[in-house]
Amino acid sequence: MKFYCELKKVVDDSYDIEIGHDLSDTLISDIEKGLCGKCKKFAVVTDSIVDKLYADKITEKLIAKGYTADMFVIPEGEKSKTRAMKEYVEDSMLEKQYRRDCCVIAVGGGVVSDLAGFVAGTFGRGVPFINYSTTLLSAADASVGGKTAVDTPLATNLIGLFNQPLKVYIDIDTWKTLPARQISSGLSETIKHACLGDYELFTFLEENIEKVMALDVPSCEYIAEHNCAVKYKVVMKDEKESGLREVLNLGHTVGRAIETVSGYELLHGEALAIGMIAQAKLGEKLGFISSDNVKRVTELYKRANLPTSIPDYIDKTALVKKLYTDKKVRDGKLRFVFQKEIGEMMCFGDNSYGKEITEEEIAEIIKEM
Amino acid sequence: MKFYCELKKVVDDSYDIEIGHDLSDTLISDIEKGLCGKCKKFAVVTDSIVDKLYADKITEKLIAKGYTADMFVIPEGEKSKTRAMKEYVEDSMLEKQYRRDCCVIAVGGGVVSDLAGFVAGTFGRGVPFINYSTTLLSAADASVGGKTAVDTPLATNLIGLFNQPLKVYIDIDTWKTLPARQISSGLSETIKHACLGDYELFTFLEENIEKVMALDVPSCEYIAEHNCAVKYKVVMKDEKESGLREVLNLGHTVGRAIETVSGYELLHGEALAIGMIAQAKLGEKLGFISSDNVKRVTELYKRANLPTSIPDYIDKTALVKKLYTDKKVRDGKLRFVFQKEIGEMMCFGDNSYGKEITEEEIAEIIKEM
Repeated sequence: MKFYCELKKVVDDSYDIEIGHDLSDTLISDIEKGLCGKCKKFAVVTDSIVDKLYADKITEKLIAKGYTADMFVIPEGEKSKTRAMKEYVEDSMLEKQYRRDCCVIAVGGGVVSDLAGFVAGTFGRGVPFINYSTTLLSAADASVGGKTAVDTPLATNLIGLFNQPLKVYIDIDTWKTLPARQISSGLSETIKHACLGDYELFTFLEENIEKVMALDVPSCEYIAEHNCAVKYKVVMKDEKESGLREVLNLGHTVGRAIETVSGYELLHGEALAIGMIAQAKLGEKLGFISSDNVKRVTELYKRANLPTSIPDYIDKTALVKKLYTDKKVRDGKLRFVFQKEIGEMMCFGDNSYGKEITEEEIAEIIKEM
Repeated sequence: MKFYCELKKVVDDSYDIEIGHDLSDTLISDIEKGLCGKCKKFAVVTDSIVDKLYADKITEKLIAKGYTADMFVIPEGEKSKTRAMKEYVEDSMLEKQYRRDCCVIAVGGGVVSDLAGFVAGTFGRGVPFINYSTTLLSAADASVGGKTAVDTPLATNLIGLFNQPLKVYIDIDTWKTLPARQISSGLSETIKHACLGDYELFTFLEENIEKVMALDVPSCEYIAEHNCAVKYKVVMKDEKESGLREVLNLGHTVGRAIETVSGYELLHGEALAIGMIAQAKLGEKLGFISSDNVKRVTELYKRANLPTSIPDYIDKTALVKKLYTDKKVRDGKLRFVFQKEIGEMMCFGDNSYGKEITEEEIAEIIKEM
């Protein structure tokens, strides 16, 4: 005997990304206008650097308007993206009587938004979530797409879910408090976006990268907007990463692995830079990109003060082994995505962007780098 | 400057529930016919009782057909519904090279399906999930609705997500291996369903409850089907529990709390029975149900060998305090849902079924029980 459960519906996860300068008042005013419905309780999730810089002010402003708000602070850095830290935030929220009638506001960079978005997605089986981005990297990487996740000892970003925020705020003013190394790391994803889908952005960076690094305002606005546009173009077409969305993973096969093998000595963007050069070099061998264009990509990464070769302390054998924890692996085989020259992606047939690569092929590239 | 991310789409989470006798071959044949697309890798999540009874056979049959399949076994019982056990299953899957190209099959009761469904929902940001139910309780409770969750020291079922399975199998034959106490516990949710939305099912149980407990086949089929129908009626109208779905929570405010306070000495259905009597008695005081109908409900629970009063070892002060961890709590106030006589729910205005209750009102009922 069969029973048919029909569950068909229209889901509208659309949201605004606002790019501007000090958006905390805009955030409060949006909440007062009903961004989160009737919600009166806000869990502000942040890290041990951003709490004193921005999150405490947002929390205070919420309290001043009569809302309940508490800060939940995780130690800064990629090492906080763990299941244990997710538990810590959840338990702290439960202790302070947060239940299903709350909203989570992430104030910080990618680690905070990945973790807070994941917490929001499973707290009371899902509460609303707002993303207030305070780094260049998260403006490029974490603001469009709805990806949330934690790392585990065996793999990065493999435990998580898709959770779209109610709204994203990209506060360009906050970039001023970033160390130069973080600015460079953030630019890594921007260069990746240019390589995979925006030739105009690539030439803009070739002409203006030093201005961006000096935080020239119009240049920052330009890249913030173009980052969203590239990512949105890809995400809108394929929210769940079956085909096209894999292109956003450009450079990440080697990048993610090297980030882990370095014990997080390398920042995400630094590891990604090496991964981008690796896919470009492999792509050159396979005829997907000219040696001139590989040079242009390498040159741009160098000018952004990012590494383009593998540091001596990395165990290359361990690195090759680690590649197999990549989420693109299928049937135990490595799969890469490649840029097609600059500003486009290699497509291998119908909505298929991943290409099977042998261990020998990539090991040879890694050996040379 | 604003950027609009439009993410609107039609989602079809519809699925079949198949009710029958030994459905393992049906499951395998469905998989061969493409139930999980091209998936070739199956993580069979089960518990330390069901593994030897049913899950091992399903795993063997999958392997015999050329699929990769492994069993991931958790200790039986409610105490396994934890974040730690979720981590254990995830890490075991990662160690065995499970990635995003797998499918999770839950073989067991409610604990297994809640945990496995949650694992599937966040593994690689979501992999497909099949539910093979082997208990009366999970047939009534966990087969429709897509709710998955774990318990935490501070609250039950508060960390989880909505995740609809590809298909649910309700194997009535498996009920034969359930201890009598589990059969009774399972009937508790069935009686609840009758109380909240199916008067015909209630009178059927009044006439046939002993036959159901003796596992008379047509009677079991009748209740399996009616359980699905009641739950589906509610879930279809409100997948995310904003209003109507709260009615499924009938009896659970006190039930969940007493289950936790008992240190899981009480089975879920036993705790629910006490919670059902508590809401009925409180409902009688508030004029929602006649004393005659309270007696009928109490009598039916007694005939199912379920407790209808609070055991002596329960600390009633702790119990009242625990009520505040209920997910229906809003602004720190207790909220209950009530049956309206038998077979209907009390509605308090537009799609609103929860009613605010003072601590004194419920404490008085608890004191008397």
